[in-house]
Amino acid sequence: MSAPATIRASIVGGSGYVGGEALRLLLAHERVDVVQVTSESFRGKLVHQTHPNLRGHTKLKFSGVDDLEAVDVLFLCLPHGEAQGRLAHYAGLADRLVDLSADFRLRSPERYRAAYGHDHACPERLAEAVYGIPELHRDAIRDASLISGAGCLATATILGLYPLAKADVIDRSAIFVDAKVGSSAAGNKPSLATHHAERSGAFRSFAPTGHRHTAEITQELTLGGGEPVVHFSATSVEAVRGILATAQVMVDPSVDEKAIWKIYREHYGDEPFLRIVKDRAGVYRYPEFKLLAGSNHCDVGFERAADTGRLVVMSAIDNLMKGAAGNGVQAMNVAFGFPETTGLGFPGLHPV
Amino acid sequence: MSAPATIRASIVGGSGYVGGEALRLLLAHERVDVVQVTSESFRGKLVHQTHPNLRGHTKLKFSGVDDLEAVDVLFLCLPHGEAQGRLAHYAGLADRLVDLSADFRLRSPERYRAAYGHDHACPERLAEAVYGIPELHRDAIRDASLISGAGCLATATILGLYPLAKADVIDRSAIFVDAKVGSSAAGNKPSLATHHAERSGAFRSFAPTGHRHTAEITQELTLGGGEPVVHFSATSVEAVRGILATAQVMVDPSVDEKAIWKIYREHYGDEPFLRIVKDRAGVYRYPEFKLLAGSNHCDVGFERAADTGRLVVMSAIDNLMKGAAGNGVQAMNVAFGFPETTGLGFPGLHPV
Amino acid sequence: MSAPATIRASIVGGSGYVGGEALRLLLAHERVDVVQVTSESFRGKLVHQTHPNLRGHTKLKFSGVDDLEAVDVLFLCLPHGEAQGRLAHYAGLADRLVDLSADFRLRSPERYRAAYGHDHACPERLAEAVYGIPELHRDAIRDASLISGAGCLATATILGLYPLAKADVIDRSAIFVDAKVGSSAAGNKPSLATHHAERSGAFRSFAPTGHRHTAEITQELTLGGGEPVVHFSATSVEAVRGILATAQVMVDPSVDEKAIWKIYREHYGDEPFLRIVKDRAGVYRYPEFKLLAGSNHCDVGFERAADTGRLVVMSAIDNLMKGAAGNGVQAMNVAFGFPETTGLGFPGLHPV
Amino acid sequence: MSAPATIRASIVGGSGYVGGEALRLLLAHERVDVVQVTSESFRGKLVHQTHPNLRGHTKLKFSGVDDLEAVDVLFLCLPHGEAQGRLAHYAGLADRLVDLSADFRLRSPERYRAAYGHDHACPERLAEAVYGIPELHRDAIRDASLISGAGCLATATILGLYPLAKADVIDRSAIFVDAKVGSSAAGNKPSLATHHAERSGAFRSFAPTGHRHTAEITQELTLGGGEPVVHFSATSVEAVRGILATAQVMVDPSVDEKAIWKIYREHYGDEPFLRIVKDRAGVYRYPEFKLLAGSNHCDVGFERAADTGRLVVMSAIDNLMKGAAGNGVQAMNVAFGFPETTGLGFPGLHPV
Repeated sequence: MSAPATIRASIVGGSGYVGGEALRLLLAHERVDVVQVTSESFRGKLVHQTHPNLRGHTKLKFSGVDDLEAVDVLFLCLPHGEAQGRLAHYAGLADRLVDLSADFRLRSPERYRAAYGHDHACPERLAEAVYGIPELHRDAIRDASLISGAGCLATATILGLYPLAKADVIDRSAIFVDAKVGSSAAGNKPSLATHHAERSGAFRSFAPTGHRHTAEITQELTLGGGEPVVHFSATSVEAVRGILATAQVMVDPSVDEKAIWKIYREHYGDEPFLRIVKDRAGVYRYPEFKLLAGSNHCDVGFERAADTGRLVVMSAIDNLMKGAAGNGVQAMNVAFGFPETTGLGFPGLHPV
Repeated sequence: MSAPATIRASIVGGSGYVGGEALRLLLAHERVDVVQVTSESFRGKLVHQTHPNLRGHTKLKFSGVDDLEAVDVLFLCLPHGEAQGRLAHYAGLADRLVDLSADFRLRSPERYRAAYGHDHACPERLAEAVYGIPELHRDAIRDASLISGAGCLATATILGLYPLAKADVIDRSAIFVDAKVGSSAAGNKPSLATHHAERSGAFRSFAPTGHRHTAEITQELTLGGGEPVVHFSATSVEAVRGILATAQVMVDPSVDEKAIWKIYREHYGDEPFLRIVKDRAGVYRYPEFKLLAGSNHCDVGFERAADTGRLVVMSAIDNLMKGAAGNGVQAMNVAFGFPETTGLGFPGLHPV
Repeated sequence: MSAPATIRASIVGGSGYVGGEALRLLLAHERVDVVQVTSESFRGKLVHQTHPNLRGHTKLKFSGVDDLEAVDVLFLCLPHGEAQGRLAHYAGLADRLVDLSADFRLRSPERYRAAYGHDHACPERLAEAVYGIPELHRDAIRDASLISGAGCLATATILGLYPLAKADVIDRSAIFVDAKVGSSAAGNKPSLATHHAERSGAFRSFAPTGHRHTAEITQELTLGGGEPVVHFSATSVEAVRGILATAQVMVDPSVDEKAIWKIYREHYGDEPFLRIVKDRAGVYRYPEFKLLAGSNHCDVGFERAADTGRLVVMSAIDNLMKGAAGNGVQAMNVAFGFPETTGLGFPGLHPV
Repeated sequence: MSAPATIRASIVGGSGYVGGEALRLLLAHERVDVVQVTSESFRGKLVHQTHPNLRGHTKLKFSGVDDLEAVDVLFLCLPHGEAQGRLAHYAGLADRLVDLSADFRLRSPERYRAAYGHDHACPERLAEAVYGIPELHRDAIRDASLISGAGCLATATILGLYPLAKADVIDRSAIFVDAKVGSSAAGNKPSLATHHAERSGAFRSFAPTGHRHTAEITQELTLGGGEPVVHFSATSVEAVRGILATAQVMVDPSVDEKAIWKIYREHYGDEPFLRIVKDRAGVYRYPEFKLLAGSNHCDVGFERAADTGRLVVMSAIDNLMKGAAGNGVQAMNVAFGFPETTGLGFPGLHPV
């Protein structure tokens, strides 16, 4: 089936950071017409008052959710928990849903309850939702009616480790991850912790243990093998956009640096958004999110300790792009048969 | 009259940034015993939970304002408008009040009304309050029962221009000031404008015209001459602490650079906290607040355009120190006859 | 004459920040084929090692300047002074030159000598070069063989004041400008002043008077009237990209806010990159460069003091985009008859 | 033996960041007279031109190293490798040496060679030097003639893990550490990697494996038990001062959170600079270096994963204070019998 010339898209819950980023991308997307963006709080107001970068780029006003028209694809950018209760309603409005909340990331009600501490409101759809990272589930996304976005910290961690887990060369019994994340990942609701004078310059361990994204990481890295034990620690850092996940794990002594290179190349050599960053010289020898603001790239690099068999894997993304809206648009491109990079060509800035 | 060995001090409204800074300074002050710190919201809680830098430095808990004991000096660090209504009450608790709000900075009810848009609740005390910048009003502070702190932006601007206005060498008909200020000056109440993702990296004109501190600046720079016309513009900048005020004004052609040097030296040569910063080489040729975090210095520098008679005056402070609590402690030292630098010796850090 | 389908472009001096930004824009430009990028220091090396954001976006290697082929347009991104000596040579390689250095911004040898302190090496071409801000000189750019980029600080200042100067409603005898600029404007050569520990958090007056861009501003705002007196002061601020110019000037009392609005709308209402930013509410009421990283917009706003006739004009740009490479590409689009926004559609990010 | 009233101190290699910080502390130290500060490059220049925070706080000029007088204590703040070759000379000038370089941190020539890749120039003194962290070696420091400073990353890591290693409750076979460090730790020599536009906002893995401080950490945590395997990874982060080390390690299931609390309290309960930071609520629940600029504190906190036996230990310091000069002054206080906190009372700022 050939791809449609253009599709109609709307965004539900468009006043937050993820919704704003999805709107920015869809407005510039040559195959998409943006029909509506909803916000109950800002209904009737110009969207550029909430997303000031879009001043002059759109005259759209926020609609109410009750005024939604039928479209080809709906992006759900609601707070956690709000999509699952009304999913049937949204599914009635569009054949394709891209849910960028945490509602449909886990495949089983049990896993969901363990991670989120309550029962899922729509457990019957969990199994059919596709975990929307195209690098892992491209074929399934093509046929999916419900594409779930992935957690931003999970995306960086999974993409860093996936080829190694697939190739089964790492010790799954203990994977230690230290993930750093910028302030936009916490959304746009003010609090004392996000007040500039308190948050500026902060390196704040907010989930030394027990982060909910661990469940996604474990789910996606199981890959038919045993479920890995992921020791995950998360720190808020001085940045607005960006995640750097540093994973430390043991590899078999026989798997030397060349072998690791080969594994990454095999899995990511043809991926348009995955870059293997590992240079011998220069300033940017390993992945850095500083280069990635506005870009949909995930940069992955590694270093293997010669003496101990320890492998350090670093992966960096823009949490609002590859960690949320950018990845969602990429999945939409896959689903509708558009070239996968359409609307996602921005390479990031340097310096910035 | 000789200075007392030690005095007892309390802080009213001690949960904000200015109150916390006053507490930090008074706890380390060798001539002061801190008796109480009040906060209605945090009553009964350890102060270090609100001011985490003081963990291990005090075991004080917040008191309620109704439990205040009589002391030698009360620091009022309340939101604007709250001190004026209860001044008689506080005056009954201490012979000396240091009010770090904006309530008693202007000398006349008319000026207050013009600046703040409403009548003052205690107009009879306005005339007796002393504008508490020791470099301007040291003698009056010695005898004052009510010392008013100065506005942070006003302090930087006034200290930059005061010697020139006193020497009557600048054109008072048009003084253009562009003042930049860090986020702590806005206090610790979260809002969207101060949300980290919105405020980080921002250079935000928040009062291009009409800033209330203009009234203080005008009042203090009149100096028996005509009232100056101060064109004041204020911008929030990416910093937590710090003010840089850049004033542009015309000087008489006969007043060359040497003459300006001489004027500054005459006024500030013996001042412990005023430094004239004007180097021919090096990185730090003019005042910069980066060097001043935690310091009570006001650094002042200038450059005179050879061709036009234009003079640019730059002055920098830490808004919570010389712009608020540090200046208040300096005034207290003056009032009680302590060496003026007591408890204020921290020089600032480099690099930082 | 109709526009060509595509043109061939090369960049001379492509290892710096302006060259890298020009390269990023031209690589993504649908009407341009990038032929060569020169660097003597990095000759033969992959350009993405110097411009790491372009990893995966180009396989170009740096050429030597002696290997340059003939093309349709040459972007000169050389250090100041290097283009003027070899202009004839470059003119032999391309019918259109876009010079992003400071070599050809001033129209007369006298003005150049006064600003730069030495004689120009190619004075005969000064008069024919077009000052390449399309909003001012669009028609001249169409026919120009030598388009000169404008100074980044000059661009922001000029675009803020141009409509007012053109309408002749401001007092030209005294325009006070306080301009703030991020670190990328200083280029990529390390020094102690730009060392991170020294430069981070700095607000550093680097040219309180005597900045060279003043000459451009004066030249461009003369507009047939008397030459304006521009009192210019420049400060390095904590940012990598971005300029905020704050101009203070007196307007005729009869020119009220509505009249100023009308003037800006008349001049900028149809301009694709100029946005008038002046909102009554919200966080982003005036121009801010935080929103503009990677964007070619110039945002202009103003506030008029009701009582004094003072007008404050704020203008913000990304210094590497509208202040350098973006403006150069815009001028190239004009020169070749391409739609003016081609390759310049990125709206900037929020939050960032 | 009673402590002397005051001692005479000089600093060798005083133009760098560590030397400047040592100078700041010693100038304000009530028991110390600073005699000389050497710098070959700046000989004869005022020290405040290099350390601009000290303007007005000292009139010292840099001396040449050949003009050094005999003193009670010499602080060696030289680049790595320079102290070891001339140690006998410096030992002839002062009975006490505090070496803040990396020259004398390792106890054996073999360990030194393995870590630094060359033979030590003065191997016979390695065994006698005391690793100068008072919390570990207080008694030895009292009698030491050569006190070696500790690596900044090593200090944070060691102080976080020391009580647990001493109590022998962690799995020494695999300790994973992810350490983040600000830009001042790299010293004041400009390079492209530290150029503001490149370094600002960067989170840059600079030693994913193979960091030299690992050898110190291993040495100090052995503690009579087996040598621990420390998997150390280091990242440069957006900060000027500050280190946050996050260690992940397995603990015996029987060692619950209360037991860990007890261990930390037993070891650090009486330590003046060690604070255990672990709150149930509030913004600052775990250690953060944002609060520590200028402070000599090391804040340590932890979280134990209920299900897996994993323990996450976070420790934060100011790398120039507890990570270098502050710790050196603390060791000097111990060595000369001064109260240990003398000159080190600054609690840090909030907010900042």
